[in-house]
Amino acid sequence: MTKQLLSLGALAERVGARVVGDPDLMIRSLATLQTAGSDQLSFFANPRYLNQLRASRAGAVLVTEEHVADVQGSALVHGNPYLAFARLSHQFDWRLSVQPGIHPSAQIDPSAQIDAGAQVGPGVVVAAEAQIAAGVVIGANTVVGHGCRIGRDSRLEAGVMLYAQVRIGERVLIHSGAVIGADGFGFANDQGQWVKICQLGGVVIEDDVEIGAGVTIDRGALDDTRIGRGVKLDNQIQVAHNVQIGEHTAIAGCTAIAGSTKIGRHCTIAGMSGITGHLEIADGTHITAMSLVSHSITRPGAYSSGTGLEPHRQWKRNVVRFRQLDELAKRLRTLEQKVEHFTTEGQQDDGC
Amino acid sequence: MTKQLLSLGALAERVGARVVGDPDLMIRSLATLQTAGSDQLSFFANPRYLNQLRASRAGAVLVTEEHVADVQGSALVHGNPYLAFARLSHQFDWRLSVQPGIHPSAQIDPSAQIDAGAQVGPGVVVAAEAQIAAGVVIGANTVVGHGCRIGRDSRLEAGVMLYAQVRIGERVLIHSGAVIGADGFGFANDQGQWVKICQLGGVVIEDDVEIGAGVTIDRGALDDTRIGRGVKLDNQIQVAHNVQIGEHTAIAGCTAIAGSTKIGRHCTIAGMSGITGHLEIADGTHITAMSLVSHSITRPGAYSSGTGLEPHRQWKRNVVRFRQLDELAKRLRTLEQKVEHFTTEGQQDDGC
Amino acid sequence: MTKQLLSLGALAERVGARVVGDPDLMIRSLATLQTAGSDQLSFFANPRYLNQLRASRAGAVLVTEEHVADVQGSALVHGNPYLAFARLSHQFDWRLSVQPGIHPSAQIDPSAQIDAGAQVGPGVVVAAEAQIAAGVVIGANTVVGHGCRIGRDSRLEAGVMLYAQVRIGERVLIHSGAVIGADGFGFANDQGQWVKICQLGGVVIEDDVEIGAGVTIDRGALDDTRIGRGVKLDNQIQVAHNVQIGEHTAIAGCTAIAGSTKIGRHCTIAGMSGITGHLEIADGTHITAMSLVSHSITRPGAYSSGTGLEPHRQWKRNVVRFRQLDELAKRLRTLEQKVEHFTTEGQQDDGC
Repeated sequence: MTKQLLSLGALAERVGARVVGDPDLMIRSLATLQTAGSDQLSFFANPRYLNQLRASRAGAVLVTEEHVADVQGSALVHGNPYLAFARLSHQFDWRLSVQPGIHPSAQIDPSAQIDAGAQVGPGVVVAAEAQIAAGVVIGANTVVGHGCRIGRDSRLEAGVMLYAQVRIGERVLIHSGAVIGADGFGFANDQGQWVKICQLGGVVIEDDVEIGAGVTIDRGALDDTRIGRGVKLDNQIQVAHNVQIGEHTAIAGCTAIAGSTKIGRHCTIAGMSGITGHLEIADGTHITAMSLVSHSITRPGAYSSGTGLEPHRQWKRNVVRFRQLDELAKRLRTLEQKVEHFTTEGQQDDGC
Repeated sequence: MTKQLLSLGALAERVGARVVGDPDLMIRSLATLQTAGSDQLSFFANPRYLNQLRASRAGAVLVTEEHVADVQGSALVHGNPYLAFARLSHQFDWRLSVQPGIHPSAQIDPSAQIDAGAQVGPGVVVAAEAQIAAGVVIGANTVVGHGCRIGRDSRLEAGVMLYAQVRIGERVLIHSGAVIGADGFGFANDQGQWVKICQLGGVVIEDDVEIGAGVTIDRGALDDTRIGRGVKLDNQIQVAHNVQIGEHTAIAGCTAIAGSTKIGRHCTIAGMSGITGHLEIADGTHITAMSLVSHSITRPGAYSSGTGLEPHRQWKRNVVRFRQLDELAKRLRTLEQKVEHFTTEGQQDDGC
Repeated sequence: MTKQLLSLGALAERVGARVVGDPDLMIRSLATLQTAGSDQLSFFANPRYLNQLRASRAGAVLVTEEHVADVQGSALVHGNPYLAFARLSHQFDWRLSVQPGIHPSAQIDPSAQIDAGAQVGPGVVVAAEAQIAAGVVIGANTVVGHGCRIGRDSRLEAGVMLYAQVRIGERVLIHSGAVIGADGFGFANDQGQWVKICQLGGVVIEDDVEIGAGVTIDRGALDDTRIGRGVKLDNQIQVAHNVQIGEHTAIAGCTAIAGSTKIGRHCTIAGMSGITGHLEIADGTHITAMSLVSHSITRPGAYSSGTGLEPHRQWKRNVVRFRQLDELAKRLRTLEQKVEHFTTEGQQDDGC
């Protein structure tokens, strides 16, 4: 797990940055402005932390041109320091490179096709007719269902569960505990009892998707559930059957999306939001934390529901009033009419 | 995984439907009205989609008597097309039939009793004194704890975790990532530190229950946690210790139920709802999405909490007002009294 | 799994209680007041259940001095019956004592160090350079990542997933399905596409922590995510990267905490709450169920958000009014001014 040290000059080259200071400085790792030492690289992207920048003991800091003078050590000058930092973080990742081969404890069905360039960890189970491409890494104790296909350079961490017929694109990253392809929640009611509707569709995960720990993505009822290219899903998100998520949309943790809803491209949805079924959400929509989306959104913009945090005692009084809100509004209307009437009368009186 | 084709006549017979058209038409699979082709069967259950029915290229469509004339191909006439569709979906399921036997990589305690008609997958672990009945399927890498009992024809998908002493009925389906029988959340406070209360009860799952991916059902503190017959739980639901869920209740994804709450029979609870502890919810109650149920419900009906979605800027203004709601209500009352007084005075003046 | 019977006298000694009645009574297990039989011990801690105490057939009951006379059988007298009950529950736990040894089906990297006093279950995978101390129990099919360290007497139940470099203290209990150390949700946006920020920090779990089933705790971006000593996390909680949770804080199920938030010591946070990122929550804060915490809390106390449960029809009307709330408040202000004006005029008239 020891990573090679890289010179500041080499790092600059990888992201097209300019070095101000010592290009031969060897960088051991990345760190925040507050904790970085003389062999670490940090970044400055938020003006709020200018004092931290000025006080930082970092060997080097990624900054824009205008803040070069605020850096104590060396500077890596870049138009978008945060983006450059993101790119450079890959040089310091703790993940090991692919070590092709199948662990002897893995249980592989004879009809499965596993590329010689794939790495299959201990305790992995791969069912019949599955196809795993080169560069794929399958973490320990992960299960790959019947007929699944996993594209080049994708990575399933330990303990991922894929049901049958899940198709995964290239460079997809799926975290532990994710379950892809379980049955959608579909039942017909027969005199009070539920009759299961077998879920006959599949799941398609396009290229460059990341799926967080404990995420569940159900298979479609008849058609497929589909996660578009470049989508990023945080932990513990629930994606119901036949949902479609548009390209490059990012969704934060614990959000749930009910069946057949179609979310647009480039949306950002904050954590713990709930989106009910059969909706369409426009491209570029932003939903704030813990909102309930109960109707379609046709115009991009930011949307919210809920109330703000308050001291409990005060909140309790307001909650009581919320229950009276319609009545309060009607009383206000009545009062307006009375006063209006009064004023008019008064004016008439004046006019007399 | 190839399924046998079935004739329209054979399908009709299984659900007591009447064929209008060609009973010898061979049906390959089920599909929606929009995607179905000439060897597929679709269904029409929602009048909103009448145009889709009229335009469908489906080989056959399940319809009620009144819509036979709207079908282009053959029709399967049934009093409840959606229910008939649910029943027929089982003819086309992707799950393989039970293949009895224990995979050589499974680790079975010698004292466990596994019926010869059960199927135990690769990497499965079965602890001491567990009992597994005929027709049961245990998916890859699933763990069955000490003394668990699993009834006939139940199915645990891959990566299910059962703690000790979980009792599961017949024809139960448990999806991947579900954890049944973990400790309930019980602690006594000792001068600021938490002392664990060992959770000595178990979990009972009655017949015909379905449990979604990533669901957690905790064991009881002293008595059992109990999921009634025919209950359907969607993904990522949390069921705390000593909860009881009545027969044929269906709960959508990400709902959480706190300790010792007793939910009635035939309830429907929408997704992301929260139900606090020690409540009783009447039979036949419906809770809408993302509601907080903080008191018992004694009359069946639909219940809700929360606010509706709004553009963020408008919402922010309303949220500020919510914090003033009690004060606004009091100001309204004051104003009413003033106006009342005024009006009365005015009337008295008139009377003078 | 059969536990030894213990005499009432022996139990009394363990918690410093006084026996009133038969100290030789053999106690088989613990039970509630309502279900306990003649060989069971119960407890009375809530005055609401006084009738249950009086009617109980328990062989013995833990009570305070003042309720000794209400006990039908023997009494164990203690200043804090609930706490004594918590301590005694450990005498009756269903968990087996540690059985040191490594199951032959476990896959242990040669560079991992596992103490001879640790128990490693079937199907467990331990990666390179991991260190596992004496008294640790690793449940079936659990995965321990590269370089993880697990302190004495900690217990990972079946199917826990630890990523690389997770450090776990002593006497920690982690339930099935928990995922510790997955990547934090960090991306930089590059013209609409997301560039992953590799998550280079780790996770530190201090001593005496309990982590519920299906909990996800992400590794830090650069520094560590940290769970303080004695913290108790219920099921399905999401802890984002760089969160810090102070000592002895308890959090109920399905709560989510966004990145870099710092929660104080001795807080209690009810279920399904959401806490947004980069906040600080004061020591001793209480958050009620399903609240959204969107700003820092500097004073301890109870805080809430949301609205109360109502019949759906009534709620719908109030939700419409919530959308008009700012407008209603302005109309109220206008009316107040009008009436004020009117009254003043009236008074002036009177004065004339």
